[in-house]
Amino acid sequence: MSSKRVKSIRWESGNLYLLDQTKLPHQMVEEKQNSIGQVWDSIKQMKVRGAPAIAIAGVYGLVIGMKDKTPLPPQDFMAELYNQSDYLKKSRPTAVNLTWALNRVINKVKASLKKSESTAGDSSSLYKTLIQEAEMIHREDEDICKKIGENGLQFIMPGMGILTYCNAGALATGGIGTATAPMYLAHEKGIPFHVFACESRPVLQGARLTAWELQRAGIDVTLITDNMASILFARGMVDMVMVGADRVAANGDTANKIGTLGIAIMAQYYSVPFYVALPISTIDVATATGREITIEERDGEEVTSMGGVRIA
Amino acid sequence: MSSKRVKSIRWESGNLYLLDQTKLPHQMVEEKQNSIGQVWDSIKQMKVRGAPAIAIAGVYGLVIGMKDKTPLPPQDFMAELYNQSDYLKKSRPTAVNLTWALNRVINKVKASLKKSESTAGDSSSLYKTLIQEAEMIHREDEDICKKIGENGLQFIMPGMGILTYCNAGALATGGIGTATAPMYLAHEKGIPFHVFACESRPVLQGARLTAWELQRAGIDVTLITDNMASILFARGMVDMVMVGADRVAANGDTANKIGTLGIAIMAQYYSVPFYVALPISTIDVATATGREITIEERDGEEVTSMGGVRIA
Repeated sequence: MSSKRVKSIRWESGNLYLLDQTKLPHQMVEEKQNSIGQVWDSIKQMKVRGAPAIAIAGVYGLVIGMKDKTPLPPQDFMAELYNQSDYLKKSRPTAVNLTWALNRVINKVKASLKKSESTAGDSSSLYKTLIQEAEMIHREDEDICKKIGENGLQFIMPGMGILTYCNAGALATGGIGTATAPMYLAHEKGIPFHVFACESRPVLQGARLTAWELQRAGIDVTLITDNMASILFARGMVDMVMVGADRVAANGDTANKIGTLGIAIMAQYYSVPFYVALPISTIDVATATGREITIEERDGEEVTSMGGVRIA
Repeated sequence: MSSKRVKSIRWESGNLYLLDQTKLPHQMVEEKQNSIGQVWDSIKQMKVRGAPAIAIAGVYGLVIGMKDKTPLPPQDFMAELYNQSDYLKKSRPTAVNLTWALNRVINKVKASLKKSESTAGDSSSLYKTLIQEAEMIHREDEDICKKIGENGLQFIMPGMGILTYCNAGALATGGIGTATAPMYLAHEKGIPFHVFACESRPVLQGARLTAWELQRAGIDVTLITDNMASILFARGMVDMVMVGADRVAANGDTANKIGTLGIAIMAQYYSVPFYVALPISTIDVATATGREITIEERDGEEVTSMGGVRIA
């Protein structure tokens, strides 16, 4: 399985490579990220997407942005670190993991500055701390995915029909995904089940990414248009819904790809269990309820065209 | 308004012209139908679609198919009429209006044969009856649309948000549509309202047809992807849902474009009125409940590609 699992993010010899997910499934193009501005664009344009993957790309973006700042005095280095982090946070407003990860690396660097003031505190060692913490977040995410998978595995019964929405898969994370993690592990164990992947208009993450990555891993998957879900529920073909999340408010309100709400309402109507698989970093305790979650408004062009072809 | 309203079906000097709806909104191409086989293909390929429009195209298709059969003796003419009608009925299984319309013209021809046996009964006069009844169905449909509009007008309050699904518009009928008929009349009266047209994957009738025809008529319309409906309901932007129907069973169960069920469940969840606008010919009293309605299974290609572009 793992040999066939694609990596959305590769960090090698201090260089960041992102698989351009906007070109999938037609082309597999990995782009070396040469500047923080390029990483910002990659996130904005959804070349890298999925809350955990955005967070990892973001902190590596900060590493790239700070590379030539080591000659600065520590205080100026820190000021620059805050500036660049604020800049990166604006690339995708709903992905709270990004803010979480950026704050985490900054806090780590700040703590290392405090500790080193008495010793040999310089910006190069701060930069080193920044890299280490970014790499740590990356490794941890891989581990978190595995743990989500182990937790979720208990819900997958042989012969089940599982509906998933958007892409909360390997491509969205540093590991085997969030919502897909139990599926990858169940498949590894030889448990038979069937996945229905909703295409997730307008950007078709389900069609282009989820169906593609599961099929690639040998998992039994059927691609459906979003509006077909109701018929599958009505026919009793869906035994469980499992999705990821962009952000979860303190009260449990969940923001995810547009249309997830409709699936949840149908699942309730047909009494089908609905699970949201996520790492703790997706929970935003500073946001009380779903009402306060900023919903991103994207270009109308995403609706009126498809794969560059005008449809309306 | 009427000057800007397109005609999906034109019958002129004994010739049938169908607007190829698969090419909309990019191109407006009217195709002269030269054979019953071509009409069958036009229905199957959804060049003409919408239950009432299919029925009208179907009966004209029968007229075209029977054109060179007038030299046959009346009994053979009738046998041929049954054959060709059976053939046409198979082009779209869910469109019950087609069967209704074909049976209606056949019964009329049969009645005229009976009546004429004592007088000058020949196949030419049977053919004439066939044409007259087909034209009658066409004219009546125009009138029915207007009456649906007059009935539905009472539900449109100034400032309302109306959600519609698929295309139950002028393009789907011989007149101003079924679900859209009240909208056209309300617009004529200067009542302000807003329409949300769901794109209706996989064939995008909402995006390509409903949004296009309403915009063309000057009606305030926003195109949304099907999965966006839930957010509009949640935000209180939808005051009413109005859709058409492919077929209604004796118990009221309604078959319409895939995804209509999901919209209905959401409308119920948010207590938004849901109306189905239809002519009596859409009601199939021979079918007891929705369970017995044949659902058409179409080519999987319609899901994996879009406007000829492969998306998955």
